[in-house]
Amino acid sequence: MSDDAPSLLDRLSLNQQTLRQWSLPELADGCARAGVRGVGLWRAPVQEYGAAAAARLVRDAGLRVTSLCRGGFFTALDPVERAAALDDNRAAVDEAAALGTNTLVLVSGGLPAGSRDLPGARERVADALGELGPYAAERGVRLAVEPLHPMYAADRCVVSTLAQALDLAERFPAEQVGVVVDTYHLWWDDTVGAQIGRAGGTGKDNGSRIAAFQLADWVTPLPAGVLLGRGQLGDGVVDLRWFRQRVDAAGYRGPLEVEIFHPALWARDGTEVLAEIVDRFLTHVG
Amino acid sequence: MSDDAPSLLDRLSLNQQTLRQWSLPELADGCARAGVRGVGLWRAPVQEYGAAAAARLVRDAGLRVTSLCRGGFFTALDPVERAAALDDNRAAVDEAAALGTNTLVLVSGGLPAGSRDLPGARERVADALGELGPYAAERGVRLAVEPLHPMYAADRCVVSTLAQALDLAERFPAEQVGVVVDTYHLWWDDTVGAQIGRAGGTGKDNGSRIAAFQLADWVTPLPAGVLLGRGQLGDGVVDLRWFRQRVDAAGYRGPLEVEIFHPALWARDGTEVLAEIVDRFLTHVG
Repeated sequence: MSDDAPSLLDRLSLNQQTLRQWSLPELADGCARAGVRGVGLWRAPVQEYGAAAAARLVRDAGLRVTSLCRGGFFTALDPVERAAALDDNRAAVDEAAALGTNTLVLVSGGLPAGSRDLPGARERVADALGELGPYAAERGVRLAVEPLHPMYAADRCVVSTLAQALDLAERFPAEQVGVVVDTYHLWWDDTVGAQIGRAGGTGKDNGSRIAAFQLADWVTPLPAGVLLGRGQLGDGVVDLRWFRQRVDAAGYRGPLEVEIFHPALWARDGTEVLAEIVDRFLTHVG
Repeated sequence: MSDDAPSLLDRLSLNQQTLRQWSLPELADGCARAGVRGVGLWRAPVQEYGAAAAARLVRDAGLRVTSLCRGGFFTALDPVERAAALDDNRAAVDEAAALGTNTLVLVSGGLPAGSRDLPGARERVADALGELGPYAAERGVRLAVEPLHPMYAADRCVVSTLAQALDLAERFPAEQVGVVVDTYHLWWDDTVGAQIGRAGGTGKDNGSRIAAFQLADWVTPLPAGVLLGRGQLGDGVVDLRWFRQRVDAAGYRGPLEVEIFHPALWARDGTEVLAEIVDRFLTHVG
């Protein structure tokens, strides 16, 4: 492939949702066999297995947890709902700490029912980051604000661009709040290259804001609901190598986490899919 | 409703695709009866009816044509395909002139099959604008670059934000190239208010770049293919009044064109849908 393929492979992480047909033990075993060294986990299966047990399982397989997905959903107007969301996010921070990952991915939340007030919703996200940031940092966990594609702005995430995520993150210390760079969500944006540079270390405290880098490809047509149409690496239009080179040039040395949601991958044999992912990763990202 | 309702109603235009169950004569008659003074037309039905005949029909009904949809699709790599696209756009300019509208809406086109080169595709759009701009302006027609929602960037339009459309337009004289502000495509963008101000008259020649303003609401969940899910005014999350106030504050005095693509509207009686649109327009835009 290329001379840097081995070191790149060391950086490959598999997000659990990519192979949701696998249980946690299957995931740990499958990744270890495939030479994949990192996994991104999700809260529901971790809670079901037990966070401490999951941490042990993953560690015993020689893997590290590169991120926990996901906290967030900060946009509720109702004070009771809002307090519950903050409590739940503190629990997510605790789970991340138990798993030994320093990255909690946050999806900000969409507009509350009946609301058209995007600026207000975005400000409530900032308020929540301010409340949770110190709690997270004390536990060695950074809040990673993920801008989601603008097609999710109404019902899932009012933070739609990397510039906007950085505007939010930069209100707080870099060790408390970072951002996620996800190719699926950001590939269309003509300013994303410049914003990755900004994220890399020109913040006021000169700390990098890039807490995670995730990879999926963009394929069309989009399915109804637009949630489960992310493409296998190389199947779509995203210049994945360009993105990886940009985050590297911005000083990022962290995991390259593959996170694909697609029923066609879930319907197949996990070992076979993972081998395909490794191959595609080396071809299109390396 | 409010004191400015009558003058607002004078500015209401109905884009033909909103009521595609209507023939052109039904559209002209239905709008005249409903007190709607403007129509946005599409090339295919105009060609079928004949541009001169369509112009007469609409004029005789006391209406004006506020825009012609659509030219564009400029991103082909193949020189033959590219020349054909330019020829077709010159024909579209001629049709717009025949209809008496000064606005030809352009959808830029997506990535050519197999390409991942967004910057290249965008540059080909700029080249095409440079070729067509003088031809259009000589015929009293302005090319109106429409940024489409980023979910269309791969297969339909590589111009995704108002900032990007203005970056393109400002390379050319304001009488040759303007932009379309469409609430459906732009509502999620935290920079859109500032960009509408920019479009209104801070260009190098101090001419407004706002060639058209179109309205539809954003409703979820999105349908498969994401083309036919635009919402009736007021059914979704877009602050339509805020948008109308921003374009007005930017000096725009042109038509307020309702363009909704939704099978549920097409399945209903056109007269009833149009009455509902007028009512929603006065409630949510006025």
